[in-house]
Amino acid sequence: MNELIANWTRKDLISIESLTREEIDTVHALAKHFKEIMATNPASLPSLRGRTILNLFIEPSTRTRIAFEIAAKRLGADVTLVEQAASSLTKGESLRDTAQVVEALQADTVVLRHSAAGSPLYLSKILNVPVINAGDGAHEHPTQALLDTFTMREKLGQSLEGKKITILGDILFSRVARSNIFALNKLGASVTLSGPATLVPDGFRQLGVEVDLDLKSALADADVVMLLRIQHERQTSTHFPSLGEYKSLYGLNQERASWLKPDAIIMHPGPVNRGVELDSSLADSNRSVILQQVANGIFNRMAVIYLCMAANNKNLISE
Amino acid sequence: MNELIANWTRKDLISIESLTREEIDTVHALAKHFKEIMATNPASLPSLRGRTILNLFIEPSTRTRIAFEIAAKRLGADVTLVEQAASSLTKGESLRDTAQVVEALQADTVVLRHSAAGSPLYLSKILNVPVINAGDGAHEHPTQALLDTFTMREKLGQSLEGKKITILGDILFSRVARSNIFALNKLGASVTLSGPATLVPDGFRQLGVEVDLDLKSALADADVVMLLRIQHERQTSTHFPSLGEYKSLYGLNQERASWLKPDAIIMHPGPVNRGVELDSSLADSNRSVILQQVANGIFNRMAVIYLCMAANNKNLISE
Amino acid sequence: MNELIANWTRKDLISIESLTREEIDTVHALAKHFKEIMATNPASLPSLRGRTILNLFIEPSTRTRIAFEIAAKRLGADVTLVEQAASSLTKGESLRDTAQVVEALQADTVVLRHSAAGSPLYLSKILNVPVINAGDGAHEHPTQALLDTFTMREKLGQSLEGKKITILGDILFSRVARSNIFALNKLGASVTLSGPATLVPDGFRQLGVEVDLDLKSALADADVVMLLRIQHERQTSTHFPSLGEYKSLYGLNQERASWLKPDAIIMHPGPVNRGVELDSSLADSNRSVILQQVANGIFNRMAVIYLCMAANNKNLISE
Repeated sequence: MNELIANWTRKDLISIESLTREEIDTVHALAKHFKEIMATNPASLPSLRGRTILNLFIEPSTRTRIAFEIAAKRLGADVTLVEQAASSLTKGESLRDTAQVVEALQADTVVLRHSAAGSPLYLSKILNVPVINAGDGAHEHPTQALLDTFTMREKLGQSLEGKKITILGDILFSRVARSNIFALNKLGASVTLSGPATLVPDGFRQLGVEVDLDLKSALADADVVMLLRIQHERQTSTHFPSLGEYKSLYGLNQERASWLKPDAIIMHPGPVNRGVELDSSLADSNRSVILQQVANGIFNRMAVIYLCMAANNKNLISE
Repeated sequence: MNELIANWTRKDLISIESLTREEIDTVHALAKHFKEIMATNPASLPSLRGRTILNLFIEPSTRTRIAFEIAAKRLGADVTLVEQAASSLTKGESLRDTAQVVEALQADTVVLRHSAAGSPLYLSKILNVPVINAGDGAHEHPTQALLDTFTMREKLGQSLEGKKITILGDILFSRVARSNIFALNKLGASVTLSGPATLVPDGFRQLGVEVDLDLKSALADADVVMLLRIQHERQTSTHFPSLGEYKSLYGLNQERASWLKPDAIIMHPGPVNRGVELDSSLADSNRSVILQQVANGIFNRMAVIYLCMAANNKNLISE
Repeated sequence: MNELIANWTRKDLISIESLTREEIDTVHALAKHFKEIMATNPASLPSLRGRTILNLFIEPSTRTRIAFEIAAKRLGADVTLVEQAASSLTKGESLRDTAQVVEALQADTVVLRHSAAGSPLYLSKILNVPVINAGDGAHEHPTQALLDTFTMREKLGQSLEGKKITILGDILFSRVARSNIFALNKLGASVTLSGPATLVPDGFRQLGVEVDLDLKSALADADVVMLLRIQHERQTSTHFPSLGEYKSLYGLNQERASWLKPDAIIMHPGPVNRGVELDSSLADSNRSVILQQVANGIFNRMAVIYLCMAANNKNLISE
């Protein structure tokens, strides 16, 4: 484990775009190590007892919040939550003020979810303690991509070279898609985007991906189909298909799933709109790895928290 | 203590109806044990350190939430809270999806409060980890009945055989009344229901209780009078008496309390509407055991959490 | 440390007004001790493991809530939060009922924030466990004054005799101003109040302070200028200046700061309305000790929690 930690020098996790392939490997190796420990002897996990992690969720997210909370507690850290609704911390304050207060409050790490892209990067430059991006606007959601690619490597083998990953759905503003594209590129996989033309921007080709609006061919030889959640709040816009239209044209159902290779897997970051982007029977089938994604999210977040804190405080390692 | 644990084989606590008399005794014996330890040497409590309990409160309840939270923390467990208001976990998801996510998140036990009767049972069949019912619709509130009967046994003696318990008030949709009726029947006590005819359904006789709408005779020879909280939200219905009417006809005041035996005790699950179902002077009198109920709620919930987790994970015992 | 604890006999911290000079010294000495431990060997802090602190915030306050939460957790205690919005604990209940329930729930200490002045005092008389005032209406905010005066002593030296502290702004209903006036008087400092006549009540002279509505002379020989937050919610009243008026007449900007002595320090309890009561350039300058105030808030709250719990439970000391 100490060797893994020695390979990691980043104080913060802001984006996948800025990571090297080797750094992704390091997170995955430590996540795998933690997963093995949890299954056998949780008491031998390294301890962050006495450390305080502040979950600063300026944009609400129950799932991601809980996953970070459980990951931190599994390592023995204390977690203090600040959510926007309850927050006068941020009232009349700039993010900078909030950040300075957070640091003065002796938090050892900040997990930030924010609706504004770039907030975690900005915060990381002000704070001496690690900042972990838990999703920032339409920019990135790096821990989601780390757990997604970790899950793919568990299922498809450590090397994703030459594997085809088709991402299907509401890609336009999706930080999940963006982070996964960066991660998959670095890991040597090839990425195809599909879905309604209004949701699959042609400009994404610049990121080194294929855009294939023909669903059948996009699915045909995919090893993984990654669905994205259709945002209900988009439904007021005339630019976007209705839920019913989306379902009828792009929803993954048994017929369309038959276009996939027999051993292709189905992924979804959750929560699933059952019957819209994915049929219930498929969500609960053996092809779906949705729950493994959730479980792997704990281990990958434990790894990220531990690596960033260790990089920032060499005392952690010798403890 | 290990003998008590060996007597308990249930993974879940869903209802009192499904418990045996011996199982109720086991919870009470362990609760008594924990109460004694807490009074003398809290450090010798068995440890759930490193275990995560998820408080899933889809219906809000501050008191019950805090009681479970403190009970779990007293045993050293970590507690993560999901409340409906803040919850996108459940947005667009079925309870089944939520359950699967909870399990994938590595929670070791789920405490569920839900407005729909049957939710905890449904959840317990899906999850491998213990599910503890913290109140489900008009069905049951088993830990409330466990703490109530525990308190009666402290006050009236271990045997409740032949004791008369009068439950007074808004019984129609009361899960507290239902769970207590089941528990008291199993413990050999006789139960009388009283209150306005619209709130005291005749069909409850099928549960083996007396219905006595004459308040004076219902109270006359009771050993315990258990009041229920009048739900303000019912006041919009013409089927129910107003708070003023209820108070004047059924509120327990000094005059009506004089109809009780001198050593009869007064119980209430809280929070009390002072001056409505119970006079302040009585709530604060020696006859009231309301605060003992609250305190015993901690010990009984510690016992339930520990028994279910131990039944589900034999490693706990040897630790 | 044990000597400090032996000097403290109060179960509760309700007000600065009721403290002696020696008691303030004791809090500051223990806070300094904790600050030194935290900087070198946090593992040697005394332990409140297994103790439960209930944060009862009937009036919302993210900053103060987090500061108490982190302070308690740094000492190893468990913290349970009850906020008004989520609270049915207090629904239809008097504060007395709430208090009794809190005690029955086995909380070891209650931190109370309440919009009604006098609530903590009332609660402290009912409860056997410590009650710590985290701000009560327009009455007092004692931990704020303890951290403020601690910070002044760090900057100006342990003796504040003869130092001039100018408090500027919305003093009329400010519990921060009241608590600081009491603390500074006891520590021998002289206090001058300034600001708009409508916000600086002449009656405050009875507390032994100067009132100087001429801003230039109020600032001229001050060692400390303590700004108060302008409450946006006051802006609907015609009695109060608008934010724009306040800024132009009383906001501390570079020109007005030039009236101060070169080594005078600028304080603010936060959150700052940048550009209203304080210019950004000054808030971020070396003269500002705003972030030190936040940091010292942790150590002073650790000290207060520990002293009150130790006074109430002699077993803590020998542990």
